[in-house]
Amino acid sequence: MTRDEITADIVAARLAKQLTWQQLADAIDRPVMWTIAALLGQHPIPADSGTVLVDVLGLDQAAVPVLAASPVRGGLATAVPTDPTIYRFYEVLQVYGGAIKELIHEEFGDGIMSAINFSIDVQRKPHSAGDRVVVTLDGKFLPYDWTAAEG
Amino acid sequence: MTRDEITADIVAARLAKQLTWQQLADAIDRPVMWTIAALLGQHPIPADSGTVLVDVLGLDQAAVPVLAASPVRGGLATAVPTDPTIYRFYEVLQVYGGAIKELIHEEFGDGIMSAINFSIDVQRKPHSAGDRVVVTLDGKFLPYDWTAAEG
Amino acid sequence: MTRDEITADIVAARLAKQLTWQQLADAIDRPVMWTIAALLGQHPIPADSGTVLVDVLGLDQAAVPVLAASPVRGGLATAVPTDPTIYRFYEVLQVYGGAIKELIHEEFGDGIMSAINFSIDVQRKPHSAGDRVVVTLDGKFLPYDWTAAEG
Amino acid sequence: MTRDEITADIVAARLAKQLTWQQLADAIDRPVMWTIAALLGQHPIPADSGTVLVDVLGLDQAAVPVLAASPVRGGLATAVPTDPTIYRFYEVLQVYGGAIKELIHEEFGDGIMSAINFSIDVQRKPHSAGDRVVVTLDGKFLPYDWTAAEG
Amino acid sequence: MTRDEITADIVAARLAKQLTWQQLADAIDRPVMWTIAALLGQHPIPADSGTVLVDVLGLDQAAVPVLAASPVRGGLATAVPTDPTIYRFYEVLQVYGGAIKELIHEEFGDGIMSAINFSIDVQRKPHSAGDRVVVTLDGKFLPYDWTAAEG
Amino acid sequence: MTRDEITADIVAARLAKQLTWQQLADAIDRPVMWTIAALLGQHPIPADSGTVLVDVLGLDQAAVPVLAASPVRGGLATAVPTDPTIYRFYEVLQVYGGAIKELIHEEFGDGIMSAINFSIDVQRKPHSAGDRVVVTLDGKFLPYDWTAAEG
Amino acid sequence: MTRDEITADIVAARLAKQLTWQQLADAIDRPVMWTIAALLGQHPIPADSGTVLVDVLGLDQAAVPVLAASPVRGGLATAVPTDPTIYRFYEVLQVYGGAIKELIHEEFGDGIMSAINFSIDVQRKPHSAGDRVVVTLDGKFLPYDWTAAEG
Amino acid sequence: MTRDEITADIVAARLAKQLTWQQLADAIDRPVMWTIAALLGQHPIPADSGTVLVDVLGLDQAAVPVLAASPVRGGLATAVPTDPTIYRFYEVLQVYGGAIKELIHEEFGDGIMSAINFSIDVQRKPHSAGDRVVVTLDGKFLPYDWTAAEG
Amino acid sequence: MTRDEITADIVAARLAKQLTWQQLADAIDRPVMWTIAALLGQHPIPADSGTVLVDVLGLDQAAVPVLAASPVRGGLATAVPTDPTIYRFYEVLQVYGGAIKELIHEEFGDGIMSAINFSIDVQRKPHSAGDRVVVTLDGKFLPYDWTAAEG
Amino acid sequence: MTRDEITADIVAARLAKQLTWQQLADAIDRPVMWTIAALLGQHPIPADSGTVLVDVLGLDQAAVPVLAASPVRGGLATAVPTDPTIYRFYEVLQVYGGAIKELIHEEFGDGIMSAINFSIDVQRKPHSAGDRVVVTLDGKFLPYDWTAAEG
Repeated sequence: MTRDEITADIVAARLAKQLTWQQLADAIDRPVMWTIAALLGQHPIPADSGTVLVDVLGLDQAAVPVLAASPVRGGLATAVPTDPTIYRFYEVLQVYGGAIKELIHEEFGDGIMSAINFSIDVQRKPHSAGDRVVVTLDGKFLPYDWTAAEG
Repeated sequence: MTRDEITADIVAARLAKQLTWQQLADAIDRPVMWTIAALLGQHPIPADSGTVLVDVLGLDQAAVPVLAASPVRGGLATAVPTDPTIYRFYEVLQVYGGAIKELIHEEFGDGIMSAINFSIDVQRKPHSAGDRVVVTLDGKFLPYDWTAAEG
Repeated sequence: MTRDEITADIVAARLAKQLTWQQLADAIDRPVMWTIAALLGQHPIPADSGTVLVDVLGLDQAAVPVLAASPVRGGLATAVPTDPTIYRFYEVLQVYGGAIKELIHEEFGDGIMSAINFSIDVQRKPHSAGDRVVVTLDGKFLPYDWTAAEG
Repeated sequence: MTRDEITADIVAARLAKQLTWQQLADAIDRPVMWTIAALLGQHPIPADSGTVLVDVLGLDQAAVPVLAASPVRGGLATAVPTDPTIYRFYEVLQVYGGAIKELIHEEFGDGIMSAINFSIDVQRKPHSAGDRVVVTLDGKFLPYDWTAAEG
Repeated sequence: MTRDEITADIVAARLAKQLTWQQLADAIDRPVMWTIAALLGQHPIPADSGTVLVDVLGLDQAAVPVLAASPVRGGLATAVPTDPTIYRFYEVLQVYGGAIKELIHEEFGDGIMSAINFSIDVQRKPHSAGDRVVVTLDGKFLPYDWTAAEG
Repeated sequence: MTRDEITADIVAARLAKQLTWQQLADAIDRPVMWTIAALLGQHPIPADSGTVLVDVLGLDQAAVPVLAASPVRGGLATAVPTDPTIYRFYEVLQVYGGAIKELIHEEFGDGIMSAINFSIDVQRKPHSAGDRVVVTLDGKFLPYDWTAAEG
Repeated sequence: MTRDEITADIVAARLAKQLTWQQLADAIDRPVMWTIAALLGQHPIPADSGTVLVDVLGLDQAAVPVLAASPVRGGLATAVPTDPTIYRFYEVLQVYGGAIKELIHEEFGDGIMSAINFSIDVQRKPHSAGDRVVVTLDGKFLPYDWTAAEG
Repeated sequence: MTRDEITADIVAARLAKQLTWQQLADAIDRPVMWTIAALLGQHPIPADSGTVLVDVLGLDQAAVPVLAASPVRGGLATAVPTDPTIYRFYEVLQVYGGAIKELIHEEFGDGIMSAINFSIDVQRKPHSAGDRVVVTLDGKFLPYDWTAAEG
Repeated sequence: MTRDEITADIVAARLAKQLTWQQLADAIDRPVMWTIAALLGQHPIPADSGTVLVDVLGLDQAAVPVLAASPVRGGLATAVPTDPTIYRFYEVLQVYGGAIKELIHEEFGDGIMSAINFSIDVQRKPHSAGDRVVVTLDGKFLPYDWTAAEG
Repeated sequence: MTRDEITADIVAARLAKQLTWQQLADAIDRPVMWTIAALLGQHPIPADSGTVLVDVLGLDQAAVPVLAASPVRGGLATAVPTDPTIYRFYEVLQVYGGAIKELIHEEFGDGIMSAINFSIDVQRKPHSAGDRVVVTLDGKFLPYDWTAAEG
């Protein structure tokens, strides 16, 4: 039973049981975005949470230790995603990637936004011309820092 | 004089004149992120703003109509970006792309976040463990809608 | 039971039962192009329509909730399609893509044709030198618009 | 003077002289979509039309025979286009390519829409929720036909 | 039962039964090249011929309607073929592709050799220094022709 | 002066001087297909023929020894050609490549058609439904033969 | 039973039965390099040899006709091999490919080393600083020769 | 003056001066294969040899220190070479790569043929059916050896 | 039972039995990094060690000879790795690859660090700002050396 | 004057002036590995150091502000490097990438080695069988940490 097989089982079981992602997140008291990413195979799920989720979804408890291991991350089937909902975020990188880089450097200096010390959130926000999808990427600034272990 | 040549001239002139992107944005009274993206060749720049920018940067006024045309967008030199500051956003797509999609569908139904009716912002936000880069993507929700012209 | 497996079952069942796509579209009272795309895994199928289609095709009703979920879209096996009937549309992009872009900008200004608020139709039209395939792509014009959520 | 160099000169000269594509098409009395494609290097331009266009754009008459030769077609810089206005048409192929193929076969039998005996048009059409970009692809149906030269 | 699965069954059954391609072509009274291509999944096989072939090869009659449907064509596992017998034809394109194009244009004007209204043949022809493989590609010339549906 | 630069000069000079490929072939008394391939950089051109061609085209005689050297062959800008006239031959490989291979093996046994001991020709042939492009590939059959140098 | 499945069975059976490649080559009295390549799916194996090998390896005799057919050659899983033992030969091509080409042309004129009329051998040769792997590629020189079938 | 520019100058100068590679190798008393590879940019050329070669070829002495630096190796313009003379060696890898690997392991154990402690030679060898190109790759066997620095 | 299947079984069994990699390394008295690489399919495992590991993990002893064979190495699913923990090492190559090369050449002359006569280690090292991952790559320097077998 | 042009000038000037990388590092009192990476275009160089380096190398002082800007990082010309000295590090990733990941997770938990808070060093270390290249990668461990900005 590989992580990929478990992920496929999770996707199928969630639909068959008509559970929302929010319900699954609530069951383990974790943010919904983290929960979805983890259930889609992108984060390890601690054994206590894994036990709950496996139970709710009606899967085999043998999945728990596999879910608890750090997975090989990377959820896109192709380097350039084909799904329109995901592609728009790739398009944002094509159009604004250079500008994001320049603004981070102007504001913080040479470095990056961490994608590890990081959280992400999607909110529905109102607008008179139609509601908006507001995605917040929030990562620690990491300055380029030439450091070595001590001693 | 192609748009690419003008972009290269802009990048060089900004550094030579030691201008910040914010100063350039202020000169045309536009958001700084939009201004950088436009100056990096990703948006048309209206002739009045173009005239100001070309003047501030000391470029040839012949660049103005080229800047005013809709460019062929796409600023990444390779499909998977190599620069670490930009790559982290691609990594976010690899790790959270599927989860973003699922959450948009759970919250809004079938559809996408527009990358056209869209704005993006980078903010420095405090945290006791180190300041954070907070990037906000804000796009109109577009539901899949099977519509045809009338009449 | 993944969406891909259900799609394969649909393709096989339709041929085995000698049903036309039009008959399937009529069964759910939806446009034929939308119906084919949905049955090939590119659109969610609402549960009531899904129940009808699964019944007509003789598939397991367990497929209904999977069909009702937003699929990961993208139906080409390779970035450049190899099938001649599909390839010709890619060739149109290679030969006329730049011209389509220029004409949209000249007619509408900076922006795109939406592929979300969109419909598409194929018609047989007469011509003395042989009938013609006329494909109409009909999408809402979306101007580049730098907008943010209110409040 | 290669065709690519002439194309770059045409793009620059059109913007410098503030000519619309429609004006250029009118100058040679050809459809605007054909004219743009040809001026972007995708069709040969007969010498009489080439002479007119080179004159209007202020280019060297030495370009005329190069414009009159059949070019090596293919206008996308990458197999998957990055420009959003062009990408949407690639996305249409990802989402509807299989359905277009099936519908052509159901309506016409085994064969293709020609992209050679072909015309294409972009129209602005009204809709109460916003004007629409309507692109019409019109190609002769070519049935698969196992034929050899006679005699 | 997908077309790919049936193709694999055909390849295995032909070898197991020690049938030549020519025998299969004779059984349905079709050219041998067309027959091979069709049995390898590149052409639809009309139901009457399909019934004969399925019988000769000892396959399940359920394959007949699948064989009769227009397949998704494209038989190369990689964009550049690795098999030496097939690769040499790709090499011909690398070395003579540009020359073929120029000679078609010089002889016929702007246009293409159709690969749809097309036949192909392989002959063994004598030569004192060793027999030769002579492959004849025979396609209708299609001139670029800007035509639209009438009325 | 590289071979690529000379090729570009040849293409430009031929158009400027309005010479046909046939005229160039006649000038050196070689088959027209071979001549075009050679002038497009795919074959070495013996010095005597090179001297004639350089003279006819009005190029610098310094090109002669470069033309006489074996070039690095390969004339396609991308692995999958984008030009429709050339692409159709790639499509033939996608649709008939496997069948060509099988027929060569059935007729000749295990081996290949040489693309080195090889000639190729394009003919215009009549057909009541429109003239046809007939391309003949003629290569020596080379059987797989496990041979080593003697002695 | 496809050739790929049989190849996998051969690899597994050889290890399970602890047979060397040399033993398998001796069983059919063929060179060991040819035998390995053939058993890895790169050459057809005549039925008499196939019968012996299938017997020695304990496979099903139904594999014999499949082994006897010309396979679709090409044994690398990726265009650039990842296995270090194989990669070094690719590296040789990157570093010496151009030089090999030049030396063949200087020694033989325009043409190639055949990979069809060809044999290859690996020898262990002594050296005071450590034994050496000596790989000999031995192919017939094929001059570029513009020849057509006679009569 | 980059190494690539010097390489292009070398190629051009050799042809213009009608020098053979052997003559250049003799001038510096080095093996001809090494000399060609080095002159094509794949090896550093010691300053004394570089001085001689630059003199013989009539290049600028400023090239000498650039030639003496270790170059960024890799002489193929594409991952899969397009030139037939070079491609045949890639084909050898596709057909015999797995067999070479197995035979090295059977003869030497787990390890590789070094491409660094390595020489390569091309010889013309006679055969009654036509002379042969015999390429000898000769590299030290390197066993996989888990070793660390001492102390 | 292929090596890939055994690798998948090993990964699953280790998690199910809650064994650490260190415990597995201790069981065969080998360095932990070597042991993990070998168990992930990148090194042959001698039969005595294989017997122990198969026993500890509860796998079939039939796996032992397969584990003992030299595997086809290469553990990345895509040329550019998507997993962030692995990607950072690829990023190091993008940012420091050229500098590593230059420094090796400056310190040792023309040559490489062997990845065959090689060991690698990961250590946790303290730092006041947070512990550090210290990875040591230790390979024999191999100078480019043009050597051939003796005699 | 782009950063790429300045990098090319630096590489040429260093060789022309026969300066070692160590001498350049000493001139600005920075680690040699950092200095090389920076001079090859992978790090910004503070203006004071840039002034010194530009002076030592004899370049134009106008390069100083360009050197001081954060560059678009990524120094490999192809995704898989072709140069053997660099390739070996890519090979290490293919063979040990998965093992490095597992060991980091076993030792530190879920997270990564930072390539930003990072230093790298190359040392020559002795061994009785030949000196060794020891490369030390030293990066801060970053645990996956779902954190958001405060307040």
